Amino acid sequence: METIAILGVGLIGGSFAKALRAAGFPGRILGVSSPQVEREALDLGVIDEAPGFEQAVQQADLIYLAQPVLRIIEILPSLDPLVRPTALITDAGSTKAQIVQKASDSIRRAQFLGGHPMAGKETRGVRAADAALFQGRTYILTPTSPRDLETEPALRLQELIRMTGATLRVLPPDEHDRVVAYLSHLPQLLSTTLASTLSEIIEPKYFPVAGPGLIDCTRLALSSYEVWKDILATNHSSIDSALSLYIEHLQQLKKNLASHDLTKTFDSAASFAAHIRKQRTE
Amino acid sequence: METIAILGVGLIGGSFAKALRAAGFPGRILGVSSPQVEREALDLGVIDEAPGFEQAVQQADLIYLAQPVLRIIEILPSLDPLVRPTALITDAGSTKAQIVQKASDSIRRAQFLGGHPMAGKETRGVRAADAALFQGRTYILTPTSPRDLETEPALRLQELIRMTGATLRVLPPDEHDRVVAYLSHLPQLLSTTLASTLSEIIEPKYFPVAGPGLIDCTRLALSSYEVWKDILATNHSSIDSALSLYIEHLQQLKKNLASHDLTKTFDSAASFAAHIRKQRTE
Repeated sequence: METIAILGVGLIGGSFAKALRAAGFPGRILGVSSPQVEREALDLGVIDEAPGFEQAVQQADLIYLAQPVLRIIEILPSLDPLVRPTALITDAGSTKAQIVQKASDSIRRAQFLGGHPMAGKETRGVRAADAALFQGRTYILTPTSPRDLETEPALRLQELIRMTGATLRVLPPDEHDRVVAYLSHLPQLLSTTLASTLSEIIEPKYFPVAGPGLIDCTRLALSSYEVWKDILATNHSSIDSALSLYIEHLQQLKKNLASHDLTKTFDSAASFAAHIRKQRTE
Repeated sequence: METIAILGVGLIGGSFAKALRAAGFPGRILGVSSPQVEREALDLGVIDEAPGFEQAVQQADLIYLAQPVLRIIEILPSLDPLVRPTALITDAGSTKAQIVQKASDSIRRAQFLGGHPMAGKETRGVRAADAALFQGRTYILTPTSPRDLETEPALRLQELIRMTGATLRVLPPDEHDRVVAYLSHLPQLLSTTLASTLSEIIEPKYFPVAGPGLIDCTRLALSSYEVWKDILATNHSSIDSALSLYIEHLQQLKKNLASHDLTKTFDSAASFAAHIRKQRTE
């Protein structure tokens, strides 16, 4: 019987398990987390068994690493002696270059194929896990060679990802990290900085003035630093470039605010915003 | 029979009309817009009649100005000779100080009371009008003296606003403009600048990488400059201050990205984001 081991049964790991189950996956789903989370995940029916780290890794056909990025990097070397030679190790970490490098250095006895589901929400933990989280989302795989996608276990992973309702895209690890610095990490930092700036200057009596626009722009600000510190640490140079470019554009806008016609800025912004929405509904 | 004249039957004016009708308002609703929009609004049943500017203003008990800010400022003096002495003129403009000043200079024969519904969406026009747009939103009134709220037509306006499902708050015009510079205009400019920056650097092949966070952060970027140019022109100094403070915080974050623990920034941001949400559901 096919066996999947999910290491880190939180929002992403738990949602992957629930999505597969909802799509009719007939195999076993093992979970490895803290004792408390394992109990919760068993109670909620998100995983079938929690046999412990060694047992889970030894039995799995697919090992799905859904921990924070630095924890994934840390745990990779300990997987190699345990893993079945026919197994595939994949991960759902938000940055890819350092993880893929570490896997290439430390995984010898099985295949590693990095991944990143472009899905999430502000609530963490297995209780927030949702069978529909990946539905309609892009799921990026980051092979180091095209052949990585053509092995039998890699083809099976792609099949499982499609079962979650996600659409597959392929990007090299470095390119992935540069692109998400702009499309994911930059919006996170703008949202966090907006909310932290406002928290200093806006008295609570004015909170009811917040309209739907501010609510949208501060949803990401609900995210925890626990999740983000590893991302910032492993993609620093691209994030720094993205922030620099953004600050430059914001200074330009501020300068032009009174004196210039901003039609072009608003038009290119509206066009970009419309395009990324169209892409998602295709 | 009670008569309301809506000048500018777009998203806000049309939604006000539809909300009142849905709540059982038994009077007449007149609309004044371009001939094409008047026809559309009549066809959609958003307004009952379109008797033209002079007739509408002469017949109305409540005149509701829902045009762009500079158009409201421009039209105010022409209302005074036409308006009934017992009528109330109000507006839904996004900035208040210049409108209230102009009304105080030019409206002599009736009462003016400024307002601002903290509601909206990225789609403009009467076709986007929605009876539920004000539901659960804050509706700010900006009297220049507390007595402005206690006249008979002002009490009736407050009753009508409550019928739309909005919650009333009162702020002096200057204070309103300072607060919305931070809570509404700043998020708009961050969103527009984010989308316009990304439109320059991100190739379309990467658009599918956009996750739900970027979608949220770029919703405001769909807004049109037609709406925003008047807001930016009539609240420039407060918006400039808000942008300066934000840029300063962003530069600080960029500096600390690699070297510092950002727990405090993320925590204060998450706490602010949670509080403005809580406030809205109370």
